[in-house]
Amino acid sequence: MSIPTTQKGVIFYESKGKLEHKDIPVPTPKANELLINVKYSGVCHTDLHAWHGDWPLPVKLPLVGGHEGAGVVVAIGESVKGWKIGDYAGIKWLNGSCMNCEYCELGNESNCPQADLSGYTHDGSFQQYATADAIQAAKIPAGTDLAEVAPILCAGVTVYKALKSASLKAGDWVAISGAAGGLGSLAVQYAKAMGYRVIGIDGGDEKEKLFKSIGGEVFVDFTKEKDIVGTIIAATNGGAHGVINVSVSEAAIEASTKYVRANGTSVLVGMPAGAVCRSDVFDHVVKSISIVGSYVGNRADTREALDFFARGLVKSPIKIAPLSDLPEIFEKMEKGQIVGRYVVDTSK
Amino acid sequence: MSIPTTQKGVIFYESKGKLEHKDIPVPTPKANELLINVKYSGVCHTDLHAWHGDWPLPVKLPLVGGHEGAGVVVAIGESVKGWKIGDYAGIKWLNGSCMNCEYCELGNESNCPQADLSGYTHDGSFQQYATADAIQAAKIPAGTDLAEVAPILCAGVTVYKALKSASLKAGDWVAISGAAGGLGSLAVQYAKAMGYRVIGIDGGDEKEKLFKSIGGEVFVDFTKEKDIVGTIIAATNGGAHGVINVSVSEAAIEASTKYVRANGTSVLVGMPAGAVCRSDVFDHVVKSISIVGSYVGNRADTREALDFFARGLVKSPIKIAPLSDLPEIFEKMEKGQIVGRYVVDTSK
Amino acid sequence: MSIPTTQKGVIFYESKGKLEHKDIPVPTPKANELLINVKYSGVCHTDLHAWHGDWPLPVKLPLVGGHEGAGVVVAIGESVKGWKIGDYAGIKWLNGSCMNCEYCELGNESNCPQADLSGYTHDGSFQQYATADAIQAAKIPAGTDLAEVAPILCAGVTVYKALKSASLKAGDWVAISGAAGGLGSLAVQYAKAMGYRVIGIDGGDEKEKLFKSIGGEVFVDFTKEKDIVGTIIAATNGGAHGVINVSVSEAAIEASTKYVRANGTSVLVGMPAGAVCRSDVFDHVVKSISIVGSYVGNRADTREALDFFARGLVKSPIKIAPLSDLPEIFEKMEKGQIVGRYVVDTSK
Amino acid sequence: MSIPTTQKGVIFYESKGKLEHKDIPVPTPKANELLINVKYSGVCHTDLHAWHGDWPLPVKLPLVGGHEGAGVVVAIGESVKGWKIGDYAGIKWLNGSCMNCEYCELGNESNCPQADLSGYTHDGSFQQYATADAIQAAKIPAGTDLAEVAPILCAGVTVYKALKSASLKAGDWVAISGAAGGLGSLAVQYAKAMGYRVIGIDGGDEKEKLFKSIGGEVFVDFTKEKDIVGTIIAATNGGAHGVINVSVSEAAIEASTKYVRANGTSVLVGMPAGAVCRSDVFDHVVKSISIVGSYVGNRADTREALDFFARGLVKSPIKIAPLSDLPEIFEKMEKGQIVGRYVVDTSK
Repeated sequence: MSIPTTQKGVIFYESKGKLEHKDIPVPTPKANELLINVKYSGVCHTDLHAWHGDWPLPVKLPLVGGHEGAGVVVAIGESVKGWKIGDYAGIKWLNGSCMNCEYCELGNESNCPQADLSGYTHDGSFQQYATADAIQAAKIPAGTDLAEVAPILCAGVTVYKALKSASLKAGDWVAISGAAGGLGSLAVQYAKAMGYRVIGIDGGDEKEKLFKSIGGEVFVDFTKEKDIVGTIIAATNGGAHGVINVSVSEAAIEASTKYVRANGTSVLVGMPAGAVCRSDVFDHVVKSISIVGSYVGNRADTREALDFFARGLVKSPIKIAPLSDLPEIFEKMEKGQIVGRYVVDTSK
Repeated sequence: MSIPTTQKGVIFYESKGKLEHKDIPVPTPKANELLINVKYSGVCHTDLHAWHGDWPLPVKLPLVGGHEGAGVVVAIGESVKGWKIGDYAGIKWLNGSCMNCEYCELGNESNCPQADLSGYTHDGSFQQYATADAIQAAKIPAGTDLAEVAPILCAGVTVYKALKSASLKAGDWVAISGAAGGLGSLAVQYAKAMGYRVIGIDGGDEKEKLFKSIGGEVFVDFTKEKDIVGTIIAATNGGAHGVINVSVSEAAIEASTKYVRANGTSVLVGMPAGAVCRSDVFDHVVKSISIVGSYVGNRADTREALDFFARGLVKSPIKIAPLSDLPEIFEKMEKGQIVGRYVVDTSK
Repeated sequence: MSIPTTQKGVIFYESKGKLEHKDIPVPTPKANELLINVKYSGVCHTDLHAWHGDWPLPVKLPLVGGHEGAGVVVAIGESVKGWKIGDYAGIKWLNGSCMNCEYCELGNESNCPQADLSGYTHDGSFQQYATADAIQAAKIPAGTDLAEVAPILCAGVTVYKALKSASLKAGDWVAISGAAGGLGSLAVQYAKAMGYRVIGIDGGDEKEKLFKSIGGEVFVDFTKEKDIVGTIIAATNGGAHGVINVSVSEAAIEASTKYVRANGTSVLVGMPAGAVCRSDVFDHVVKSISIVGSYVGNRADTREALDFFARGLVKSPIKIAPLSDLPEIFEKMEKGQIVGRYVVDTSK
Repeated sequence: MSIPTTQKGVIFYESKGKLEHKDIPVPTPKANELLINVKYSGVCHTDLHAWHGDWPLPVKLPLVGGHEGAGVVVAIGESVKGWKIGDYAGIKWLNGSCMNCEYCELGNESNCPQADLSGYTHDGSFQQYATADAIQAAKIPAGTDLAEVAPILCAGVTVYKALKSASLKAGDWVAISGAAGGLGSLAVQYAKAMGYRVIGIDGGDEKEKLFKSIGGEVFVDFTKEKDIVGTIIAATNGGAHGVINVSVSEAAIEASTKYVRANGTSVLVGMPAGAVCRSDVFDHVVKSISIVGSYVGNRADTREALDFFARGLVKSPIKIAPLSDLPEIFEKMEKGQIVGRYVVDTSK
């Protein structure tokens, strides 16, 4: 396979600067890295934060964004084990880490002080050829649809990990706040595949219809229902055992601490800038609830989330667009006009 | 053993009403209950809340308070198993529960909707003879000092359960906020016996001296230290794996979410009326921390906490006073003048 | 509701003595007991052991056997909480326990030294009216088919608990040895509902057909397959994460330690008299596997297992026979002629 | 620092062949490796198995053995993160693994099909300069005594991991079978530091004295005690919650399944060639016990075990000998004449 020296990618030189789709050099993999010919990349809200530069964490500049890249291995560093040319590989948020610190040792590599982040501190998947640490790159089963799998690499893994963080067992009720959005609809499907009963909170008949079609059991429409807390407690016979806060409104998060069951868990997973999580100490103690933050999944979580997808238990509805349309996609995202998940084709 | 028909107890007839030390009838145990000749009872902040009636949960009136009673079994209901006359028994916060609901089945009996609470919804240990459900009554090993063991029945069990709720392993760092107070000093000793390394936060040289004398390793004096968060993170090489918030200040609780280690747990255990727990959502997620409420221990927690005490690994420094002094003790408690734990002698 | 003083039941006076279907007195519930009008009772292999008296544990004599009884509460002892006349109730293997010892405190009531066993040390469900400790009696949801639910009370709970003991997560492979028998087919359905992938081992096309019809994924026919261990390891890409040994052959159990995945768990659940479990120490260590005994479920396991049944996720195919036919059913059971589960109608 | 091209090491060319202490080339680290100047190396039974070639796993030939090496980093491969020249580093049994397979992802790297083993499939620590994968090499705190720490790298980590595998909590009883031997005495100290109560089984007054001196609580002398099972059950009030089978006799292992508490865990940790673990199925089920294999610790276990050592909670009594004496040490080991742990000085 011949690897070109230049390629097309979308790059920006300063925060909120112009997103240029242009020729850039193909990177050279280090000894521990893979070079991946990215075919498709999902577009995630985090990519917008990276471009805006509005998170407390500084970004690399200039930057090629993107962290949901699905492609094919075309070159392999000399100390890489377990990969071969032609394997399907995924680029995910955590590009690489030290593998030596306490966090890495415990499988919490995203907490590594040296965590290297795709599309943030390491050029990402909005280009045709990208590098990834071979240890963190995701193994995508042969035969997988590379466009459809792209959003699983971040969105899918994230909600799957959040569900694991809720410490539920089959038969338990999980409430998903924001159940019919992009992340929410993936969460509903994973929850169903894990044997949980799903109660969804979102607004509108359209959303209810979608929610029911993917396995949701009880829908609470916040545009119609006055007493959301009471309704959820009644429907679940005492409160949801777990809550996945895909919706990032502060009020929704606080409500989750009220409708979660005694000894249950409310999981924070979205990262709205500047938001505060609040709970009443008295109730927090008497009900013995947990409020747990869930960041991104690790290597095992990624493998497992991909396996549910490969088995057909989770569908990822996408819209494919050319990579060159990325500026327009970001614009729609800023305006909140996106329904579903965009995936960009890096060849266009 | 002859059981009298009347006895001395402290009773009040309305919230904040007069605390009367007077003759009251000896209660008759039901089929599932023990009658316990209470020798000593600890005095806890919760007793003050019961008298004030300032918690969202309604109290029985008139009421005999107290839920840290240590004594001797003098009568046994007909369906009681596993007890005999003369056994040492403890009266704890949870007097009885239905044992039939989901919470009871899972060992979370304090969350039972029918939970019956000593000194709150069931006459408690500020009397010479009190009844307790035989299933919930605590088994106190023969030979135990009944005065010293009294505070273990609530204070000891509560901090022990909070430490278990932090999900630590031996060698981990636990921060105890309010480390040299009554609950805090018990927490330090339990933590030490469980193999944890203890960093304590409190104020003053006297407190530091006490903290070090009972096994604390690092002391952070909030009257001297400007950067408590930074100091704890440095001393623990990355943050405490767990935090026990004995101190109930909102600011202290919020600080705990900053100095807790990534993937660590901050445990809420005190119940200040109306207080709010706050955390920054972004950090909560990125650090993947848990904020966990811990209420009171269950039967197993109680047995285990008593076992550490019986083995001499935990000392409970007490001041013994006559039961008739209870009004003065409450007064001191309201003024925050109490150092250490009062235990009342019901015979005086 | 008028309760008669005599009733029909099947009783025997000595081990392997005559099974007499005759008039016997209706028992009187103690303060902690329910009196249940048993409508149907499952017939389990354990009932045969109770009659034979061939287990190391002595039985009560004379004895009314049976421990899968489903019926209606007709009387309630004075210290009972949480039940009312007319509730559906189940009689299970563990009739009552002390609720005071370490085992009871930890929810392992079946390990209580004072465990009282239905149809073994306490007259059981092969009669029209039986007593049960109100704490251990199973709550059966209103509207449940009392004949079909009967086998869930022991067989269903037992396999459900065994699956929990395997410490699996959704998406893991569980092998069920004896997958198409009475217990096995319940295990397949519970496993499926819990999100596991099921590989079954049993013999014959008929069994394969049944296995596939209830959600099994891969069937290994021991009458055809020479290399069972190799086949399972290949089909599961490295070995089953968990194994449920419903089949009680020593060879099958030993084989499970070879086809279980590294770090996986093989669960023992059947209790063949005198059988020995064997594993190779070197492999046991290097593969870091666990061999775990699973006895009967506790109150929470029972509630959960009944909930899966009530939701229609588990079907229990039964044959209904009059209670007076019990001797013939035992005879067939001894000859190994039973396919599926017999349930006796106590009114006939 | 100048690195020589040749060094002294002990090498053998065929199984049970001559152990030659001679000049061999200094290896060159790969991109992912460290070159470590080994100062001291422990000598472990496994080294004898590697030389004998009597395990089912084939060894590299010729081979430099040793897998408890403590030394200083002198060179670093280009893709290594988190290490610098001069750091103290340890060579342990698992030299490297793929970090990509399911086992590696889950932190069970020793189960990796590509596991590379020091002194077995990769030249080990019986030489002055050895290579180690930077991810698996152990971080030894600055200032540590490199001779004393050597046995912690395998023996210490192994017993620590075995104790973790027993799933105990502080206050539980752990029985250590072979409590006063090399591994056993480390196990006693780790158990004590973890808050467990230790009951030891071994033979002779000398051993009892040692056991008591390092924190053991109850000693059972198998040379004097007829009823070991009954004695342990009585001393622990129902059986040990966990058992660490350092002793590898089949009879001792089988006995452990009898004196372990209901719901407790017996851990297999030694690897006698050809030995079989046996348990009675009936008891295994009714007591709901677990028999768990524990292999070697992973990176986190290693860090934790070293931390207990660095804090002075675990002492490792050693005898230092020149590396050139290795043949004599092996001879003594074969004859069972070794008390305590030998550590070889690679400079002599």
